[in-house]
Amino acid sequence: MSDAPSAKKAKLEPKYELLYWPGLPGRGEFVRVALEATGIPYKDTSNESKAGIQSLIGVISKKDIEGDEAPALCPPILRNPTTGLLISQTPNILLYLSDAEVTLHPSPASQPDLKYLVNQYALTALDLTNEAHNAHHPVAVSLFYSDQKAESLRFAKEFRTLRIPKFFSFFDRVVRFNASKFPDTKYLVGEKITHADTTVWQAIDGVSFAFPGKIKELREKGELEALFKWYDELKEEEWLKEYLGSSRRLAYGDGIFRYYPELDVEQE
Amino acid sequence: MSDAPSAKKAKLEPKYELLYWPGLPGRGEFVRVALEATGIPYKDTSNESKAGIQSLIGVISKKDIEGDEAPALCPPILRNPTTGLLISQTPNILLYLSDAEVTLHPSPASQPDLKYLVNQYALTALDLTNEAHNAHHPVAVSLFYSDQKAESLRFAKEFRTLRIPKFFSFFDRVVRFNASKFPDTKYLVGEKITHADTTVWQAIDGVSFAFPGKIKELREKGELEALFKWYDELKEEEWLKEYLGSSRRLAYGDGIFRYYPELDVEQE
Repeated sequence: MSDAPSAKKAKLEPKYELLYWPGLPGRGEFVRVALEATGIPYKDTSNESKAGIQSLIGVISKKDIEGDEAPALCPPILRNPTTGLLISQTPNILLYLSDAEVTLHPSPASQPDLKYLVNQYALTALDLTNEAHNAHHPVAVSLFYSDQKAESLRFAKEFRTLRIPKFFSFFDRVVRFNASKFPDTKYLVGEKITHADTTVWQAIDGVSFAFPGKIKELREKGELEALFKWYDELKEEEWLKEYLGSSRRLAYGDGIFRYYPELDVEQE
Repeated sequence: MSDAPSAKKAKLEPKYELLYWPGLPGRGEFVRVALEATGIPYKDTSNESKAGIQSLIGVISKKDIEGDEAPALCPPILRNPTTGLLISQTPNILLYLSDAEVTLHPSPASQPDLKYLVNQYALTALDLTNEAHNAHHPVAVSLFYSDQKAESLRFAKEFRTLRIPKFFSFFDRVVRFNASKFPDTKYLVGEKITHADTTVWQAIDGVSFAFPGKIKELREKGELEALFKWYDELKEEEWLKEYLGSSRRLAYGDGIFRYYPELDVEQE
């Protein structure tokens, strides 16, 4: 049942193509959630067929400069089949989508500088994401977690004690700051949803999956009420609820956000 | 003598104010080099007086939401005193400057998507920068290098062996790709300088300071000729040469880019 909108979407011509590793949310998820907020049909190539991943491999394994598409170091990659655009870097893809899609434009349009707050907050959420990744891979992406577990234990302690509270307090202030400027809004920048909301939401969701004990502790402390209220309310919006219940939303696993009990706070 | 243009600049009203830690290039340097490319006067507050750092501390130590300036987690921070804008996040500040300043606009204007290549390459150079930082701080920014030296040795080996070659090869392809599209250019995107050039240049310059043995090895291998030619030629441009010789350019030290011989390749 929850797949009905997905099936409907599949019948429309996809406007964008997302190239990312199959089977996990990863950094591709920031692009997916932003696209879902727009309601625009998109093709998630690596997840729609077994052979899909070959499109991604084709792009990132290029060693030379043949063709019209610019070099891309790693996914996520966004392609616009109509214009021929091919770009990478998560915050760059999000910037492109928010320029291109009116659903993501900051409002009011009379304050063009809001765009740079959106980008700033999205970049900060992606920094938090990088640190959440480094919590289980502090030494090298080319090694397994088990080969850097001792370093991970040290990293995760600092991450839980200093970094998560620092980032979360910052985003709590962002919610309150925007509410002080736009009292009728429930979003992070201006009067309506932007990719600041989708990106910060996904980062907090991922960190909550990876460090459930820490997040429970923060919620119970009651100091970040504005932030958790914003997070919970966004999760209840129709488009996001539908997406989270659909098969397009992939389960967390061995990606950026991983749950290792030994890296979280001790639970009773 | 080399300070003459600096003295001249100081007499003009600065259009922008940069807030960053004093005494080191750090992430503020990406903003400085971009501003230097535009020739626009700017105020480097923390470096222009002993008291300057208080302006930065004032912004980042705010615990609440008073005032009209949005929350900023950490420097660099850019202020436009005329419009009241205050933004942070290095790639965001660079994006703002490249939108605002015609000197940094990608050309030809008939290809608006070039803007997303500029942003993509700048973000990739800043990823390289983050990894260069993590090479001496793999566990926590709150600890000293000496407290994470064992982890640093492991990280740096992977960084030298896999990551530097991966990033540098990518940027070499970027130089060659753009030259294949715009044969008369010597820049990274389109026909003229953009903040892709200033950002990639500064990242490569910093990595060259921190890992001189590795970079010497790569230069001698002769596989990345397009990249090193681009780097060397940009360094000879009048504006950059003047800047590098001025007192506005701070020496590398205990910032992001640090030289620890034990982290570099063994030298004869």
